Amino acid sequence: MAAARSDRAPRRPTISDVARRAGVSTGTVSRYLNGGHWVSAESSKLITRAIRETGYVANSTARQLRTGRSGTVAFVVDEAPARFFEDPNFEALVVAVGDALAARDRSMVLLLAGDAQSAARAETFLVTSGVDGAVTASAHPEHQLFERIQAAGIPLVNVGSPTGLEDRIAFVAADEREGARLMAEHLIAQGARRIAVIAGPAHSPGGTLRPDAFTAAVDASASEGAAPVVIGLRHGDYTVESGRAAARTLLAEHPEIDGIFAANDQMARGAIDALREDGRSVPEDVLVGGFDDSAFAGTEVPLLTTVRQDFGRIAEELVDALDKQIDAGVRTNVIVPVQLVVRDSTVRPGS
Amino acid sequence: MAAARSDRAPRRPTISDVARRAGVSTGTVSRYLNGGHWVSAESSKLITRAIRETGYVANSTARQLRTGRSGTVAFVVDEAPARFFEDPNFEALVVAVGDALAARDRSMVLLLAGDAQSAARAETFLVTSGVDGAVTASAHPEHQLFERIQAAGIPLVNVGSPTGLEDRIAFVAADEREGARLMAEHLIAQGARRIAVIAGPAHSPGGTLRPDAFTAAVDASASEGAAPVVIGLRHGDYTVESGRAAARTLLAEHPEIDGIFAANDQMARGAIDALREDGRSVPEDVLVGGFDDSAFAGTEVPLLTTVRQDFGRIAEELVDALDKQIDAGVRTNVIVPVQLVVRDSTVRPGS
Repeated sequence: MAAARSDRAPRRPTISDVARRAGVSTGTVSRYLNGGHWVSAESSKLITRAIRETGYVANSTARQLRTGRSGTVAFVVDEAPARFFEDPNFEALVVAVGDALAARDRSMVLLLAGDAQSAARAETFLVTSGVDGAVTASAHPEHQLFERIQAAGIPLVNVGSPTGLEDRIAFVAADEREGARLMAEHLIAQGARRIAVIAGPAHSPGGTLRPDAFTAAVDASASEGAAPVVIGLRHGDYTVESGRAAARTLLAEHPEIDGIFAANDQMARGAIDALREDGRSVPEDVLVGGFDDSAFAGTEVPLLTTVRQDFGRIAEELVDALDKQIDAGVRTNVIVPVQLVVRDSTVRPGS
Repeated sequence: MAAARSDRAPRRPTISDVARRAGVSTGTVSRYLNGGHWVSAESSKLITRAIRETGYVANSTARQLRTGRSGTVAFVVDEAPARFFEDPNFEALVVAVGDALAARDRSMVLLLAGDAQSAARAETFLVTSGVDGAVTASAHPEHQLFERIQAAGIPLVNVGSPTGLEDRIAFVAADEREGARLMAEHLIAQGARRIAVIAGPAHSPGGTLRPDAFTAAVDASASEGAAPVVIGLRHGDYTVESGRAAARTLLAEHPEIDGIFAANDQMARGAIDALREDGRSVPEDVLVGGFDDSAFAGTEVPLLTTVRQDFGRIAEELVDALDKQIDAGVRTNVIVPVQLVVRDSTVRPGS
């Protein structure tokens, strides 16, 4: 092969080239590339210089041949920075995925997309930087993040069900349907009969799976007396303010509401604000349930009944699923169990 | 050169190799690499496949020769994720730096270090991924982040003055001394005479520059009546809770305190909590001033007097300083003006 190859044919510098130039063993270079354990300061200096001089760059193809992985995973969140910092779920996820990777001595880089241009820049970075895979969250279809990453041949696992692409994109998700079902049965058991739903944006599981499963469970319920019914549904964008606006509209249209299910905790908080402004008490007049068990669900008054997502477990499964795809090209979908957490917002005093 | 070179000598695949393989012009590949403008979906597909097949990887050395930059800057924050999300300054900085880069059609990746192992992993990533420079924030000396990045030959600009390394590390900082001086003069003008200081950690400007400049300004003040004096100083770690603990200790040691300067707004909030718990009113009994004008300084009661850092301007200067280092190897330090923002926490009613 080597003899037949024209001199113009590209050959990437290898770890051996770096070792030769630095005057150290390939094992030392390998240890350096895998985090620097047991590499002296002097060797580190020689190796970094040799990497610069040879133009060696780790990329997923080259490093996979050697170690099966490149050592770095990109976490791509398709939201603008302001929205990213506003939603406590992203914090929980970033911390959990970072921890899961660090426990395996691997690193995470975080990219925020949030619009088509940023998604294009993210794609370029993923292709050229040599990360060995991507975890994606909150992908907006119009930014074509999945298509871009898949076209670039980069292993990809999404957090949450990728609406409409479940058969093409690997994902790890909480058991959305089960969570919504548990919440429906709980609200009905607590006496709610005329229930409104505040859903998330249509591109996300909270905009489809959660409200659909909730409505199906309400329709299927066999309760005594008046049959429970979902009397109205509005979409929010997961912010407190959108939950407040949706609840206001729902209250104006259906003053008889006695229960609200919001597809995340922040919109549930907004609904509670709107109910208060309308002179109604939670839980005395209206029961309110959220989703996620995010920060503050269990600390702000009224303490919020919600469905707990286990972000630690989700992060572990994400890294496992990504590894399976990197190592064996296998696409896996994982559903992680959820848990109903009952607090004050759905339990009437004395009930 | 080509003829004399041994067949084993590494030659990195170039943008021309990619263009030839993809059957498109080098200009098209270049546009693709710089964000995908004016590149058809079909060409994008061919180019990503060619990049995979040739093993082309953009790295700072190679791309610098061509365009002067690689297109991606790493923002390395030397804090654990939980701390990163807790401090509103990081949000402000990440948003501002991301915006400043996006406006120049360049991308940002975010790395959280927070311990020596993570810093080592960050170094490896920076060396092998081909980012063209790093912006660092909140470096803890024991993690040796500056040393690692500099040894790797990667252009570097720090946010804030790099304590003890001002002559070796390029930085962009708010005018810490001027801000502390303005706050000292304001507190004295408002009547404070026995002032306590809550400083940040010793490795950060808020642990050294701000308290030192504040104390110097108090010592130099020529006021009528009793001479103002800094009667006590405690260090916190920038969290609300640490400000509360520091204020408690200071109040126990010096019950006569009538003014507190905290080196950031969150510690100022903690101090206000401690004063309330001690039965003292702000501003009636004790004046409190912070630093940063971070989110909530102007919305939570009492509205907080503080020193405003212009994060948008800081971000612009960071990108400019990094470019000068990438393009010309020039290390620049930039001091950005600050502004005293007077609100309720230092203005006694009727004064």
